[in-house]
Amino acid sequence: MASPGIGKGRLEAFSDGVLAVIITIMVLELHAPHEAELSALLEAAPAFLAYVLSFIFVGIYWNNHHHLLHSVQHVNGTVLWANNLLLFCLSLVPFTTDWMGENHFAMWPVIVYGVDLLLAGVAFFLLAHSLIRLNGKDSALAQALGSDLKGWVSPILYLVGILSAFIHPYLAYGIYTLVALMWFVPDQRIERLLRRER
Amino acid sequence: MASPGIGKGRLEAFSDGVLAVIITIMVLELHAPHEAELSALLEAAPAFLAYVLSFIFVGIYWNNHHHLLHSVQHVNGTVLWANNLLLFCLSLVPFTTDWMGENHFAMWPVIVYGVDLLLAGVAFFLLAHSLIRLNGKDSALAQALGSDLKGWVSPILYLVGILSAFIHPYLAYGIYTLVALMWFVPDQRIERLLRRER
Amino acid sequence: MASPGIGKGRLEAFSDGVLAVIITIMVLELHAPHEAELSALLEAAPAFLAYVLSFIFVGIYWNNHHHLLHSVQHVNGTVLWANNLLLFCLSLVPFTTDWMGENHFAMWPVIVYGVDLLLAGVAFFLLAHSLIRLNGKDSALAQALGSDLKGWVSPILYLVGILSAFIHPYLAYGIYTLVALMWFVPDQRIERLLRRER
Amino acid sequence: MASPGIGKGRLEAFSDGVLAVIITIMVLELHAPHEAELSALLEAAPAFLAYVLSFIFVGIYWNNHHHLLHSVQHVNGTVLWANNLLLFCLSLVPFTTDWMGENHFAMWPVIVYGVDLLLAGVAFFLLAHSLIRLNGKDSALAQALGSDLKGWVSPILYLVGILSAFIHPYLAYGIYTLVALMWFVPDQRIERLLRRER
Repeated sequence: MASPGIGKGRLEAFSDGVLAVIITIMVLELHAPHEAELSALLEAAPAFLAYVLSFIFVGIYWNNHHHLLHSVQHVNGTVLWANNLLLFCLSLVPFTTDWMGENHFAMWPVIVYGVDLLLAGVAFFLLAHSLIRLNGKDSALAQALGSDLKGWVSPILYLVGILSAFIHPYLAYGIYTLVALMWFVPDQRIERLLRRER
Repeated sequence: MASPGIGKGRLEAFSDGVLAVIITIMVLELHAPHEAELSALLEAAPAFLAYVLSFIFVGIYWNNHHHLLHSVQHVNGTVLWANNLLLFCLSLVPFTTDWMGENHFAMWPVIVYGVDLLLAGVAFFLLAHSLIRLNGKDSALAQALGSDLKGWVSPILYLVGILSAFIHPYLAYGIYTLVALMWFVPDQRIERLLRRER
Repeated sequence: MASPGIGKGRLEAFSDGVLAVIITIMVLELHAPHEAELSALLEAAPAFLAYVLSFIFVGIYWNNHHHLLHSVQHVNGTVLWANNLLLFCLSLVPFTTDWMGENHFAMWPVIVYGVDLLLAGVAFFLLAHSLIRLNGKDSALAQALGSDLKGWVSPILYLVGILSAFIHPYLAYGIYTLVALMWFVPDQRIERLLRRER
Repeated sequence: MASPGIGKGRLEAFSDGVLAVIITIMVLELHAPHEAELSALLEAAPAFLAYVLSFIFVGIYWNNHHHLLHSVQHVNGTVLWANNLLLFCLSLVPFTTDWMGENHFAMWPVIVYGVDLLLAGVAFFLLAHSLIRLNGKDSALAQALGSDLKGWVSPILYLVGILSAFIHPYLAYGIYTLVALMWFVPDQRIERLLRRER
């Protein structure tokens, strides 16, 4: 079928659907303990910590995805497949979260968890740049992304986190958490701070 | 990325998606008995009762969330993360429901179930007040919430329910059910009743 | 919170979300056999047959729900909770389907399956009539429902099916299938046929 | 109920929801290994490969479904049930993927996987033609589908893949992958290429 124009609205709706399912089915991996004691619940603490981190990451990606498409006018086939690549990477988060939580943050699960986040970051980068190529370097999106500091720092921190896991997995978990916290701080204040430092 | 305006519509769509998945995947924890006898089904009765209560609570939150955002014009980053906090608390409901149902309403599961509902109530409060701060104290939302009696009584009842679980877990279950029933009664009649009492 | 107007659009979106999850998670109960032989697959045939029937029923309910809300202007709290009751009954379909399929259409699972469908039919009736009460007896909806033959025949057939299960469960399965097939036949032809018979 | 006009928007929303759930719950079948070693992860490689292929196929169907309905004005009951048939075939993908992955691409699972894809292709064909019948042979849709080469080649390749599984299952997997890759290449270039070859 010849490629007609693609609706941005339906791309957002499908992505929202996939992200909503990803963020929610992760809880199915949090198996309720068979005993009714509080101590049994505490044994599920590592799985819970992994769940919290992943919930925040998927929430951040939804937020960023929302911002990315908000100022965009046009969408094409390349954008669609870059978006699917991002959704694919994020669809693996329930798997990597489960492996990391079940194994109490052992080295390899923590590394694979970070690699998946890194790949998602790369996919997001590809999505952003396929959108800029389509909408023009003077578009509102391109100007907004011009000061995209977090977008550049995140993958570098993921990489540092992955490598640090070889020293101690908790170090990696700490760095991943740092990336998550970084996204909580409102952007504009950071940017003002950075301008002053320059 | 600099924070552009956030679409209220997409916040609603994402929340609807997450709540729809939460309310539905709970049924996956209702494991079908291996025997085909009615007695085998009755053994699943506690899990079923827990499911019914949770279905109603998530339904109430969806209803309240709907009302809360209906009269709102603007949304910002704080609102978005308060909303994510609410969704996180509610995403744990399938887990706490499963634990409570599987252990036939034992003390600790019933307490943890109530604590999760209490936290969801606090998150809803934060969401409501971040919306008021953004939309102004004279907004339609602020005036509607001005008489938000149920919103104040619910967390107090949850707390009473949690504490009463130390006496007997069924007492707590009863109080949680009371909160659910309270939300069924149409608001306006309650308000008229209260005005007369004053 | 005082009850402001409720958006019909968001009620549809939430219902679509819940029905989409219900219709899809049922497949998770179709456990893939451990052996790679075709004979192993055939052992899953009863579970598959139960899945097919339930997929059609949820599809029919989505279709009818779609039609019901299409011609409607106003929605209120009663409609919302009648809708939640319908979604609750349908949310149990994955459970009853699993029980019926796993036990190869034994008597009690087939009866409970039918009772759930009957309750969903009653909830749909309540939803339709709460909509008519709100939108008026002269509304397009009320006139469309005036000739709602299938809506009346279905619950009666479910009841006959449930009772026939005491004779033989396959009889009940056949009658449930009949109800499903009845909904496939386009309405207008049936109505013309009935007019001629009169 | 007499059949009023059916909203295309809600058909798209429901389909998006179902496809979003299908594409995401497949990851639940990717069970995280109990050991924290990289070798344990590699044992999950066949299941992962099956997941990747299925993710791409469901993504392609979402993309095609999007294109198909984009240029359409009217929708009726036949379209709705052709759409449900397509969703049903695709809802079985998590099951066939799991069976194929768990059995390391053994013959019968690979055949059944292909048969499901073939049936989905047939359902898509029925959906497309029920849309053309409704919207007219001169509609934008009919003209777009007039050069629908991939739509014709895909089912033939699926059939070749299914038959080749009797020689070696990996051959079938390769042909299925070929179909997936074919859909990645932008349509217009292929068409220009084909025009030159003529």
